Formats: sequence, C-alpha cells, structure tokens
Amino acid sequence: MGRVTERRKVIRIRDGAVSSRPDTLVAEEPLEIRLNGKPLAITMRTPGDDFALAAGFLVSEGVLAEQKDLQNIVYCAGATVDGSNTYNIVDVKTAPGVVIPDITLERNVYTTSSCGLCGKASLDAVRTTARWPIDDTHDEHGGDTPPVRVDPELLAELPDRLRAAQRVFDRTGGLHAAALFSEDGELLDIREDVGRHNAVDKLVGRALQNGALPLSRAILLVSGRASFELAQKAVMAGIPVLAAVSAPSSLAVDLALESGLTLVGFLRGASMNVYAGEDRIALRAAAAQG
Amino acid sequence: MGRVTERRKVIRIRDGAVSSRPDTLVAEEPLEIRLNGKPLAITMRTPGDDFALAAGFLVSEGVLAEQKDLQNIVYCAGATVDGSNTYNIVDVKTAPGVVIPDITLERNVYTTSSCGLCGKASLDAVRTTARWPIDDTHDEHGGDTPPVRVDPELLAELPDRLRAAQRVFDRTGGLHAAALFSEDGELLDIREDVGRHNAVDKLVGRALQNGALPLSRAILLVSGRASFELAQKAVMAGIPVLAAVSAPSSLAVDLALESGLTLVGFLRGASMNVYAGEDRIALRAAAAQG
Repeated sequence: MGRVTERRKVIRIRDGAVSSRPDTLVAEEPLEIRLNGKPLAITMRTPGDDFALAAGFLVSEGVLAEQKDLQNIVYCAGATVDGSNTYNIVDVKTAPGVVIPDITLERNVYTTSSCGLCGKASLDAVRTTARWPIDDTHDEHGGDTPPVRVDPELLAELPDRLRAAQRVFDRTGGLHAAALFSEDGELLDIREDVGRHNAVDKLVGRALQNGALPLSRAILLVSGRASFELAQKAVMAGIPVLAAVSAPSSLAVDLALESGLTLVGFLRGASMNVYAGEDRIALRAAAAQG
Repeated sequence: MGRVTERRKVIRIRDGAVSSRPDTLVAEEPLEIRLNGKPLAITMRTPGDDFALAAGFLVSEGVLAEQKDLQNIVYCAGATVDGSNTYNIVDVKTAPGVVIPDITLERNVYTTSSCGLCGKASLDAVRTTARWPIDDTHDEHGGDTPPVRVDPELLAELPDRLRAAQRVFDRTGGLHAAALFSEDGELLDIREDVGRHNAVDKLVGRALQNGALPLSRAILLVSGRASFELAQKAVMAGIPVLAAVSAPSSLAVDLALESGLTLVGFLRGASMNVYAGEDRIALRAAAAQG
C-alpha cells in the first residue's frame, strides 16, 4: 500500500480519558498532471494509481476517450533541485493525431458558454466535449442489445458491498470510495482516495488503460454526494447509471436528465430516490404510481 | 434563500413501494471569480454569499488579508450574448497598493517548490503566502493575551450545535457546513454550501468584509473531513483551532504541526482526536498520560 497511509502521533480523548498513541491517517499529496509536457492541473490526492488518475482526469476533460488515444504515461524525474523523483508529477503523452480540445483549468466552462456563465453553460460544455454518448442499446460491434435494467433490490445491496471492500477506510476513516459494478451486481473495480473526484478518475482511467471505455453497461457507485462534477465524469465515460449514498445537487440532476444518465441518490438500505433515467430501474408496474 | 435550493421531480422507492413527488435539492451553479478584471478561477458553488465567497477565496490565495485590501466586489453584467446578468461572475477589485502574489489556478504550489512537487512544497506555499501568523498571545493592539484554551466538553457540544443551525441541510441533505465559534462556544457564523471549501471561504470572506481578520481567537468547525485545503484556509485566516467531525489527512496534520494550528478530528460525542496544537485543549493533567 506504500504511501496510501501515514502514521502520526495523536492524543485521544474518550469521555474525559486522555491517551497518546500513533494513528494511521490517509496520505494526501499533490499530483501535477502534465499533458504532452505542459503542466495542466494539480490535484491533492492519495498516492497510488497515479497513471490511472491522470488518464481518468483526461477522459473527464475530453482529451482521451479510448486506449489508443494514449501513447504513454511517465513519472517526471529531474524536476527537483537534486534531480530526484518525487513521484508527484506525471506526464501523459497522447497518440499522434489526437486532437487536444481547448481545455483549461477552468474546465472549459467559460469558453463554451452561450449564456455568460450559468448552469446551462456547464451542461453545454459536457455535451460538446463528450466523446461517448450514453448508449446501452448497442454492443461494441454495433449490434442491438437490451438496455441496462437494474432491480432496486440489487442496487440496495451495493453500498454494503462497497463498504466491505474499502480496505483503507477501515484503518483511517478518511477516504472516499467509488466502485464500478456490472448490471448483475458484480464488483468490477473499487478505488479509494482523499478526494472523491480522484477515486472516480482512477476507476475511469483504469478502464481506459484496459480498453474498457465506454463503460456502457456499468453502474458507478460513490460513497458520498453526487455533484455536477461526478455526474460529468460518469457521462464522459459513457456510464449509464450513477448511484450515490447521499444527495445529488440540482445541476447533477439537470446533467443526468439532459444526457440520459440514470441518477440514484440517498441509496440507503431498501430506500433510494431516482432523479433521472428511471427507465433503467426495474420498478414494479403495479406500484409505480404515487 | 433564493436559489439556494431548487425543486426537481423524484421517484422514491421505499421498501419496494414507489411514489413520485417533487424533491428539494441543493442548488449548484458555477461561479467565476475575477481579480481586477482578469478571470482567475471557476468554482461550483451554492449561490448566495458570492461576494464573501470570492473574498474568502482570495484570502486563502494570499491576495487579501484585511478589509482595507479590498476596494469593491461587483457582479459582472454584460457577459452574456444579450447583456443580461447571470449573477455567476464576480469581479474583485483590490485597493491601490495591494501587491498581487504570483498566484495561479495551480495554487502556487509548483512555483514555490524547492523539492520538485511534494507535500513539503505545499507546506512551503502556505508559509510563504500567509499574511497572518497564528498568534493568540497578542490582542489587536499588540498587548499580551492568554492563549486560547478550550475545554474538550465545550468542543464536544459544537457538532450538535452546527447541525441544529443547518437550515438548508434539513431540506436537502446535500450541504456541507462550516461554522465559527468563539472560544466560549458562542456561534459566530455558519455557512452551508455544496462544496466544503466554499463554506469555509464564505465564512472567512465575511470576516474580512467585517474587518474581523485575523480570526485569532476563533474555532472553525467543519462537518466533514479535514483536508490540507481546509487546514490551509484556517491558517491563512489566522484561525488557531480547526475541528472536524471526520478524519484529517496526513498533509493537513503536517501543516497544522508546522503552522501552530490546533487540529481536532473525529469530533463525535465525547470523543475526539487531537492531532496538533494540544496546548490549546484543556486536558486534565492527571489524565494526560496514555
């Protein structure tokens, strides 16, 4: 696990009793992502899976969409005074012919804006940069497939399975988790990070590296809230179902409605709220009236 | 409350029963922060307190440190095709003579780095940009004061009081909260936002607008985890005590140790962990051995 956790001294207070002992903390360090040698972004992340994180970040930004877009990723040495490698700078080289969109650290929101800056501009930015429309009605060869359809009972089991698979959380309590499940509920991959967006980027980046994008039949489960940014990452990876343990924001719901993403929130026990794309949730017809 | 919340249709599933109804969601929209007319950053935030958010963000970035550094803040009109105002772009004008540090969207981490990019570089960046050293031993006139000293029993009460004061959370379940308390436990201010860093920026910005920086006797309580970024915001505002309901990261602890910030995590019921600056926590001497 390497630098995923670190030890620090802590003073514990429990009902007035005081003790001192070492504590295990989730590690947090900056990662600079360079694109073809040019610094693009710095994110505070938990070290590990850095190449996947960088690749997934660039999927979200519309730079990479499939395995062949990626030439290679390397750690930059020689960035320090003494020439040593901190393993905190990665350079992503795109394959010849890959067109780099006009991305900026401002997430392209402003440059694609047709209405000044507003929620609609953010939605427009996703639509214009998305390389994978959400499409679960065709297989990879273009043949017809039935759309994804998930039982609520299956969804209800996923948070417990995410929690059970969180290895580092158990030791630190300090990590967000994101996991990919198949439509049959099989756990495909799980990532933990101090930043929830990083956990999703690591999942998506790994999928890109494995040639598995678009993830057109996957369910993405996140341990916290569903913000616009997480919904954006799901859409950019072609994921049809995003489920969150906590609340979504208004703009996440708007993006889901516009892009055809199924968005489930407050997934707790046998309860959940479906905010968009309810066609993919197998509701019992007799009960489907409020 | 205006655009703090929005309504969307939701399909609720409760133990197999399905119903449809309107739901209240936390609003999320982009805010572009301009500095003297130049676009600096875009953050996804809950609308409201936008001027405070922009001011607090610039305190964290080392641009503003006291009320007189700020000339004015305005919403930018005319940024849209039809000239209307989306209230999502603010321009912060600094007072004459204010020196703008060489900040970037990359948070200045890389340019101040003495060791490539690593946790130490992040700590260095805070130290070199901090305008308010944490100092609770002098009052605003330079006279001596006793340092802040907080009873664990008082700290233990704060999360419930934060929760009770969260108005929007009750309706949406989707907001992070941050609050300032006096050393006697008086609630000074509370802000809620879809982004936890925004909630802290709004608190700090409001304090700057009120001429209350540095907040050298305040306790900052956050509803979630204590990341490096939140510890940085506390340090930049001169706040001596940061308490978090959940876990801190390794780098947040390192920054607290280096800057003299008291950092409390896992503040739940009568239990808490003190990671740094334990001198400000009134531990009973007899029990202070593990």
